[in-house]
Amino acid sequence: MPTKKELLTRPIQHIDIKQHNVVAMVDAMADMAFTARDLARGAQIYERMLRDQECGVILCLAGSLISAGLKQVFVDLIRNNMVDAIVSTGANIVDQDFFEALGFRHWIADELYKSGTEDGTLRELMIDRIYDTLIDEEELRLCDETTEKIANVIPPRPYSSREFIREMGAYLEREGKTPAKGGVDSIVLAAFENDVPIFCPAFSDCSAGFGLVAHQHARQGKPMVSLDSAKDFYELTQIKIANPTTGLLMIGGGVPKNFAQDIVVAADILGTEAPMHKYAVQITVADVRDGALSSSTLKEASSWGKVDTTFEQMIYSEATLALPLVAAYAWHKQAHQSRKQRRWARVLEPVTA
Amino acid sequence: MPTKKELLTRPIQHIDIKQHNVVAMVDAMADMAFTARDLARGAQIYERMLRDQECGVILCLAGSLISAGLKQVFVDLIRNNMVDAIVSTGANIVDQDFFEALGFRHWIADELYKSGTEDGTLRELMIDRIYDTLIDEEELRLCDETTEKIANVIPPRPYSSREFIREMGAYLEREGKTPAKGGVDSIVLAAFENDVPIFCPAFSDCSAGFGLVAHQHARQGKPMVSLDSAKDFYELTQIKIANPTTGLLMIGGGVPKNFAQDIVVAADILGTEAPMHKYAVQITVADVRDGALSSSTLKEASSWGKVDTTFEQMIYSEATLALPLVAAYAWHKQAHQSRKQRRWARVLEPVTA
Amino acid sequence: MPTKKELLTRPIQHIDIKQHNVVAMVDAMADMAFTARDLARGAQIYERMLRDQECGVILCLAGSLISAGLKQVFVDLIRNNMVDAIVSTGANIVDQDFFEALGFRHWIADELYKSGTEDGTLRELMIDRIYDTLIDEEELRLCDETTEKIANVIPPRPYSSREFIREMGAYLEREGKTPAKGGVDSIVLAAFENDVPIFCPAFSDCSAGFGLVAHQHARQGKPMVSLDSAKDFYELTQIKIANPTTGLLMIGGGVPKNFAQDIVVAADILGTEAPMHKYAVQITVADVRDGALSSSTLKEASSWGKVDTTFEQMIYSEATLALPLVAAYAWHKQAHQSRKQRRWARVLEPVTA
Amino acid sequence: MPTKKELLTRPIQHIDIKQHNVVAMVDAMADMAFTARDLARGAQIYERMLRDQECGVILCLAGSLISAGLKQVFVDLIRNNMVDAIVSTGANIVDQDFFEALGFRHWIADELYKSGTEDGTLRELMIDRIYDTLIDEEELRLCDETTEKIANVIPPRPYSSREFIREMGAYLEREGKTPAKGGVDSIVLAAFENDVPIFCPAFSDCSAGFGLVAHQHARQGKPMVSLDSAKDFYELTQIKIANPTTGLLMIGGGVPKNFAQDIVVAADILGTEAPMHKYAVQITVADVRDGALSSSTLKEASSWGKVDTTFEQMIYSEATLALPLVAAYAWHKQAHQSRKQRRWARVLEPVTA
Repeated sequence: MPTKKELLTRPIQHIDIKQHNVVAMVDAMADMAFTARDLARGAQIYERMLRDQECGVILCLAGSLISAGLKQVFVDLIRNNMVDAIVSTGANIVDQDFFEALGFRHWIADELYKSGTEDGTLRELMIDRIYDTLIDEEELRLCDETTEKIANVIPPRPYSSREFIREMGAYLEREGKTPAKGGVDSIVLAAFENDVPIFCPAFSDCSAGFGLVAHQHARQGKPMVSLDSAKDFYELTQIKIANPTTGLLMIGGGVPKNFAQDIVVAADILGTEAPMHKYAVQITVADVRDGALSSSTLKEASSWGKVDTTFEQMIYSEATLALPLVAAYAWHKQAHQSRKQRRWARVLEPVTA
Repeated sequence: MPTKKELLTRPIQHIDIKQHNVVAMVDAMADMAFTARDLARGAQIYERMLRDQECGVILCLAGSLISAGLKQVFVDLIRNNMVDAIVSTGANIVDQDFFEALGFRHWIADELYKSGTEDGTLRELMIDRIYDTLIDEEELRLCDETTEKIANVIPPRPYSSREFIREMGAYLEREGKTPAKGGVDSIVLAAFENDVPIFCPAFSDCSAGFGLVAHQHARQGKPMVSLDSAKDFYELTQIKIANPTTGLLMIGGGVPKNFAQDIVVAADILGTEAPMHKYAVQITVADVRDGALSSSTLKEASSWGKVDTTFEQMIYSEATLALPLVAAYAWHKQAHQSRKQRRWARVLEPVTA
Repeated sequence: MPTKKELLTRPIQHIDIKQHNVVAMVDAMADMAFTARDLARGAQIYERMLRDQECGVILCLAGSLISAGLKQVFVDLIRNNMVDAIVSTGANIVDQDFFEALGFRHWIADELYKSGTEDGTLRELMIDRIYDTLIDEEELRLCDETTEKIANVIPPRPYSSREFIREMGAYLEREGKTPAKGGVDSIVLAAFENDVPIFCPAFSDCSAGFGLVAHQHARQGKPMVSLDSAKDFYELTQIKIANPTTGLLMIGGGVPKNFAQDIVVAADILGTEAPMHKYAVQITVADVRDGALSSSTLKEASSWGKVDTTFEQMIYSEATLALPLVAAYAWHKQAHQSRKQRRWARVLEPVTA
Repeated sequence: MPTKKELLTRPIQHIDIKQHNVVAMVDAMADMAFTARDLARGAQIYERMLRDQECGVILCLAGSLISAGLKQVFVDLIRNNMVDAIVSTGANIVDQDFFEALGFRHWIADELYKSGTEDGTLRELMIDRIYDTLIDEEELRLCDETTEKIANVIPPRPYSSREFIREMGAYLEREGKTPAKGGVDSIVLAAFENDVPIFCPAFSDCSAGFGLVAHQHARQGKPMVSLDSAKDFYELTQIKIANPTTGLLMIGGGVPKNFAQDIVVAADILGTEAPMHKYAVQITVADVRDGALSSSTLKEASSWGKVDTTFEQMIYSEATLALPLVAAYAWHKQAHQSRKQRRWARVLEPVTA
């Protein structure tokens, strides 16, 4: 049996879209067929969102994106003012991004481990696997403990996930886990610094959930931190009401897609007629035919009054391949240069549900 | 343009597995290859879970299952003591099952509407579409309002989704929305009557979320109902600790799959060494190659210490085709006949996180 | 390392649709959504083809269907007069069906072998793998040699694949490889006895191809058997001209689907205005979005003038699961009872291209 | 109803990999996960094939690749000595490449036409559709007629598809359908000029098939051109025997993949122990779980003794997205600079089966 150290030697490296000018290639793909054309149109719609001065951009993240080498892409989108709010699965934000911010890494798995036949060995070594990527489970436990520590020091009350993730950003700054102090950059930190709110509507379902369960268990009968998921929904709806023109850039589907689409209806329920999302691009491998929300077309969303159909595009591709092209296209077109920063987190701070 | 009435004429009918004895056919499939063999093995593992007197069965639901005609399958599993807890997306439980319990229906869409080209017309008619199925959006708003009414009458405090869904069951009973009183049967009602706890870890992201947003908006500054999603996680972990031997029957992936798998780790964090899930069957169309949790193999889950590999099976099929076969197989084998009812909701009632 | 004998112990068994009456279940699925509804409609269209006295039924086979346990389904379709012509990949007809007719078997692979990590071991043992199924390569070589023997004894000239496969049927009868003489039943034999022509448009690409390469190699410079693939196309077009009303039952896509659809155009080129295929059902896992013919919708085929759109249905499912339901439905509805046998092979015998 | 002219206005343009240096980006992807990493490894293996002085490269084409804008990629591979033989579906070579060589174009379809609801209109206008691409059916008929003309003027005897396609190349040169004379470049022409043999093992199943059916119909009872598909197999096997070290670059699966893999076994049958293909890269959207050859992993091929496992890589992506990256990577790394041209067509000319 190999040792843990032998298996965790080659770290995942995050791609830097700023180094790769794909504008001409993506534009050429617009005159091809199938996925190439869809990708080009999606990239052009994302560029259009950024040039629309009225439009706030909501980024939705599902799937194992950060562990796959896409962290820097999202950091760049935040730091270059190309996204105004994020809705994500908890795993991307806590188990993967915050995890790396604490100094840990994801590792490339050899072909053999990808097959699944060696998962028993990995179990014994306390190594967790995400398809072709490996994680040191002991480090993941340290990440859980960190979220528990954060819960232990903030005032006990119901929090939206956004509020808690903001505390995680404050923690990174406080502890010097920043590029300026020799740490690595992270989505949580960049969003904290740029007042980009991050929502994880199913927040208990990640490393933060483990920390909060431990926190609540220790506080039984005493005041404790709880997570108000209705408040998440309320907050993002407030943003939609305050900024009616919106565009969605969605990687994967799942809860983030559903949640971000639903705020149009929620605004309506609160008595404000909000327009549908004006732009929508989704990168997904999901299959429309099973009727799941993840794979439902953006046209279908228009029947629900959630997404307008003029500027919508599905890109059927695995994200590690398609997203670098879409994001690099928009960055190198400099679509964000004249864009105003929205700092939506500040808008939300006075909000009390 | 057709009228709404013309489009909503042919209702979805829920399949009754009790009428279809597929035991011999499924057993024959065990000697074939590919999906047939996988399905047969999955059905046999589900039967084995039910015969294992120690084993508690957790059912996970993701995708549009109730609108697709699978409601009666789940009602039958509950009423025949073939499932002990449910983890689901909110849409299945509230927008679809509770919605039908209120007297509304899902409708079959003509081929033309499935193509997406008519979604503008549907929008104008206030008809929502799920691939090949239609919903009257005005009825869906009545469903939202009902959840708001429930939130308005229960004591204001943080609730787990389980507690709130239990209140929805009490509402159905109170209002006579039961088969005994001429209503239709539902998962929410059957689970309420049989003390089967239902968890929706991303609960804000459904019709109940709309109701709760409206409730919180009206109660600004006053005591209000909030949703503590950490409590959900805490509660299901308590169940795992109280009943260490568990099996998972998963339809789709997403948050329910992740949440149910994670309780093994959560138990560990609370200081109780809980065994991995002993049995696991997943029906999914998802593709393993994108690294998403929905599609991650059950072998991969074993590297995380969540699922044992002896009795695990992925069934790669759309659920409307595979689930009736798997469930009918177990029911007609009468695997549940000597099974004791667990009434886990009672176990949870005294739990205070 | 295990021995070959240890790995080849559990044979694939072919499902017998006559034992499984699924009519009520499939009819119930017609009122559900997604694949269940599609499958029910596909089964009902197949039934309708069989009840249409004008309609000749062409069965198209691609994918590893025989090795997967579907041989008896196709034998039953032939022997019950539910199919009039077959277009197939060579592998299904020669490497798998004829192979089993010679007395060989396919074997169930353990979970470990399915992962691909043990393929080196299989190589050393001369065992070939088809996903989760194993084949003794030495037996496959005997199958190659048998096709060479057949080529050696028939008059040297260009043959259509149909003519050569007919010779394979004659060989089985001559050698007593029939159920009556203690052998197993086969597609090749049943089709021979019932004058159902079988076309393999890419015939060189299978065990027969190996036999013919060996034959041609030995006959260099002398008269030899050759395969005229244009003649295949010519013959099936003649059938279409003689019997204008046709329906397609397609399992998988590939060359068989393309070939069978193209005869409508070919008839036109020969100066006979033949109607489009009136009925078409395809069972496939292929994905429409890559533009391949295998996955192209039957609606798309109508733009080419190949398939009418009134009675067409795609069933997105792996074949081992969907085909037994579709075929059993039609058989148990006894749709074929009043159907006349077409014996199209006799129609073709006088045809000389 | 629109006119044909209104629908056919925006032509597909073929991407030029020479304009897009993606080397740094693809190398960066090697340190990511999932498809990005697989694609990078695939590109690196293709580069390695080209640098291996012993290795002959066989390109396999399935799916609608030329109509999708990939024609120039393949022309560049041929003209830059990056491929030594081609195995393809007939549609790519005849209906799409030769079709464009005759001066016709493929056209971009509007979103509406992609949905399938307008296929009746397309039928009336004699426009054929490939997912999101349109073709003028009357032009396609002219292509059929051209292949008939070619068949009418060459000596009547059995031809391999390779020999017939060579005649198509000669026709283009003879008729001045060349870039030098103001025509467009094509795979058929480039391969003719560079003695790169092209095999279409299911050749009747395309525009050439239509031409040959018409030819044979007119020649009834007289000497005629026929297609010997066994000869195709024999010829490619001869190449393998003459050049034992080989690598496969496969786009899609189907008959071309099967055919090219099988020559290893065929060589063995002819008494020459040929090594397995040393390198193999496949770009595909197919799903391994249905057991079809198109989707079978290259590891599985190794159990059949066809592909070595040291340098094999599956890239799960639609081809229009992945192939430009893989091909541009190899071209910009100039892996082919010191490669000797093989001119395998010359090797074959004296071969008589």
